[in-house]
Amino acid sequence: MPKRNSNKKEALDKHKKLGGKLSVEPKVRLRTRKDLSVYYTPGVGHVSLEIAKDKKKAKVLTIKKNTVLVVSDGSAVLGLGDIGPLGALPVMEGKAMILKEFAGVDAFPIVLDLPAPADTRERVIQAVETIKRIAPAFGGINLEDFSAPRCFEIEERLKKELSIPVMHDDQHGTAIVVLAGLLNAARVIEKDIKKLRIVIQGAGAAGTAIAKLLHRYGVQSITVLDSKGVIYTGRKGLNSYKKELALLTKTKYRTFEEAMDGADAVIGVSGPDSIKTRHVKSMAEKRIVFALANPIPEIDYVTAKEAGAYIIATGRSDFPNQINNALVFPGIFKGALMYNKRSVTEIMKIRAAEALARMVKRPARTRIIPGVFDIGAVMAIAQAMK
Amino acid sequence: MPKRNSNKKEALDKHKKLGGKLSVEPKVRLRTRKDLSVYYTPGVGHVSLEIAKDKKKAKVLTIKKNTVLVVSDGSAVLGLGDIGPLGALPVMEGKAMILKEFAGVDAFPIVLDLPAPADTRERVIQAVETIKRIAPAFGGINLEDFSAPRCFEIEERLKKELSIPVMHDDQHGTAIVVLAGLLNAARVIEKDIKKLRIVIQGAGAAGTAIAKLLHRYGVQSITVLDSKGVIYTGRKGLNSYKKELALLTKTKYRTFEEAMDGADAVIGVSGPDSIKTRHVKSMAEKRIVFALANPIPEIDYVTAKEAGAYIIATGRSDFPNQINNALVFPGIFKGALMYNKRSVTEIMKIRAAEALARMVKRPARTRIIPGVFDIGAVMAIAQAMK
Repeated sequence: MPKRNSNKKEALDKHKKLGGKLSVEPKVRLRTRKDLSVYYTPGVGHVSLEIAKDKKKAKVLTIKKNTVLVVSDGSAVLGLGDIGPLGALPVMEGKAMILKEFAGVDAFPIVLDLPAPADTRERVIQAVETIKRIAPAFGGINLEDFSAPRCFEIEERLKKELSIPVMHDDQHGTAIVVLAGLLNAARVIEKDIKKLRIVIQGAGAAGTAIAKLLHRYGVQSITVLDSKGVIYTGRKGLNSYKKELALLTKTKYRTFEEAMDGADAVIGVSGPDSIKTRHVKSMAEKRIVFALANPIPEIDYVTAKEAGAYIIATGRSDFPNQINNALVFPGIFKGALMYNKRSVTEIMKIRAAEALARMVKRPARTRIIPGVFDIGAVMAIAQAMK
Repeated sequence: MPKRNSNKKEALDKHKKLGGKLSVEPKVRLRTRKDLSVYYTPGVGHVSLEIAKDKKKAKVLTIKKNTVLVVSDGSAVLGLGDIGPLGALPVMEGKAMILKEFAGVDAFPIVLDLPAPADTRERVIQAVETIKRIAPAFGGINLEDFSAPRCFEIEERLKKELSIPVMHDDQHGTAIVVLAGLLNAARVIEKDIKKLRIVIQGAGAAGTAIAKLLHRYGVQSITVLDSKGVIYTGRKGLNSYKKELALLTKTKYRTFEEAMDGADAVIGVSGPDSIKTRHVKSMAEKRIVFALANPIPEIDYVTAKEAGAYIIATGRSDFPNQINNALVFPGIFKGALMYNKRSVTEIMKIRAAEALARMVKRPARTRIIPGVFDIGAVMAIAQAMK
């Protein structure tokens, strides 16, 4: 539960006043019988037949051209956990607002009431089959707030079985913005990002995707931890996704303390207050701390600073270096739709991160990432999707 | 296929120019970090928790308040048949436009790519299960262009299993507007509608719903025909829905010719050119002909007139008395949402038809139904849903 209640009343009042944050608008008015005969029957019959003959025309003649599905089963909503589809709806509406406001992409939120319990394999099957069935109207799919490890298989299967871009933003949006921030942080401390010793605390959707993208980028020393400690090849009881992480990272460390001792960067994607002063104090000299849990980070900004952190980033807007997916997902979908991409590849993600990092002309300790409202970030990322 | 190609090029050009007829718009702009913190994280977390605690609040705090799902599997699109989900999409976009333009109701089109063949029972199960799973974000469901007889069971099951109004417009929208038209037609010929001898040619979604609603209203002589002839209790090979029609109507006629001989009204909901001059000529003196197939009616307006039809209605906008669902469904959903109804009942449908009929102050041969753009029809119907 968000601890800071400061804006609770305001948020509730404003949501109530709107009664839903989105409206669906006809792009032209229906004023005359003539209008109806063109946009509805009988004229629309010609359009339907044209598409029935050649399905590709749907990308030209219908909302499929510029509309993204924002979909969740409500199993891992913000930091709130499995609060169900209706609880997830205001968040999905918010994402759809951002897609339109920042990137001009139409997006509609669908929340899934799936009968199988959230932590079962049956849930994966139902999510995949339902999303496939409702996919035709959309040009892209933004998966959101599906719990790990189900989210990995849901995304993998949808990517395979659909021919439109599918992205689980909690994974890849986060990974891209973290890579962008690290690229500039490395520049500021004048080190090669590939040679940084990086600790990722948290092996959920975000931690897993960050580890994979950093590895793919060429970072050589990555240690990932879950709630039970370091993920390494010999550890018992790892699921297949964690086994993959262990094989990928081949870390030589066995405890959080060992991993942090001398580390260049720690990326917290686990939960409130899980990184302590002593951990940060044991890091390398120009230590980088990304504490991304929101609204309560893994380590408080001020505490991290007092512990000697040289560069600090959080998910919050009230401190410098806000690491925010909203910097990324609008541009990713904008670009995927603009260039008619069938998927979002690893190369595209890396190019997106580099484009975002380049938006900061002179990186500095408190300026490693553009602000959410910086003009140009969306188009820079979109163009990187070419 | 629509024969009249007159507006084919215009329809295609205009659809291409729009690239989708709907846009999804944020109701407020996101201009500042403050806006993001209220409508997205962390503020939205409070809204999500509030709804997780009390699901009813979704009707106040989210798009569920005023948003209808327009959904089709593309199995019976307009007069075009089973052209699939993408072919259906432009039509569903058109319905969503009409809901917003005429009634201020937000509506979003979803077209279903269901794996089972269109004419199987498995298709029914998949349609029901998929629509239930995506229902949470919506305040009502407009089923559209599902083929008969699957459409009956799909609607029945969804009505039972969901607590929001569900209406298959091809059935009930049509039945309501036909009843409204007949109420005024009966007034014009100065007969009691309950005593009219009525023939319904076509036993698909529309014909079945019209027969049931007229019966419910108290019309005593109804004969329904499908492509094989009159539906009566002794006929072999009737499916359960047609058996129900046979039991309901208990018609004494066995052929179309017998049924039409002396009939007061014929309602064509079958297909082009299926009612002949001789059929109309054999009817009662002040004969009523509703030929609703669109764009090619069961009998041409001019031909029907020459055959002595006293009142003629069609689905077309270029002749008097256009029988158009667009007169009905926007008001039905408007009212259901306004008055927070859990379903659309038979009584509500009858009240809607009566309200619509009353909109015509002085019914006449060429004026039995309001025009689609007549101000007040939507609110009259909406208020009848109270």
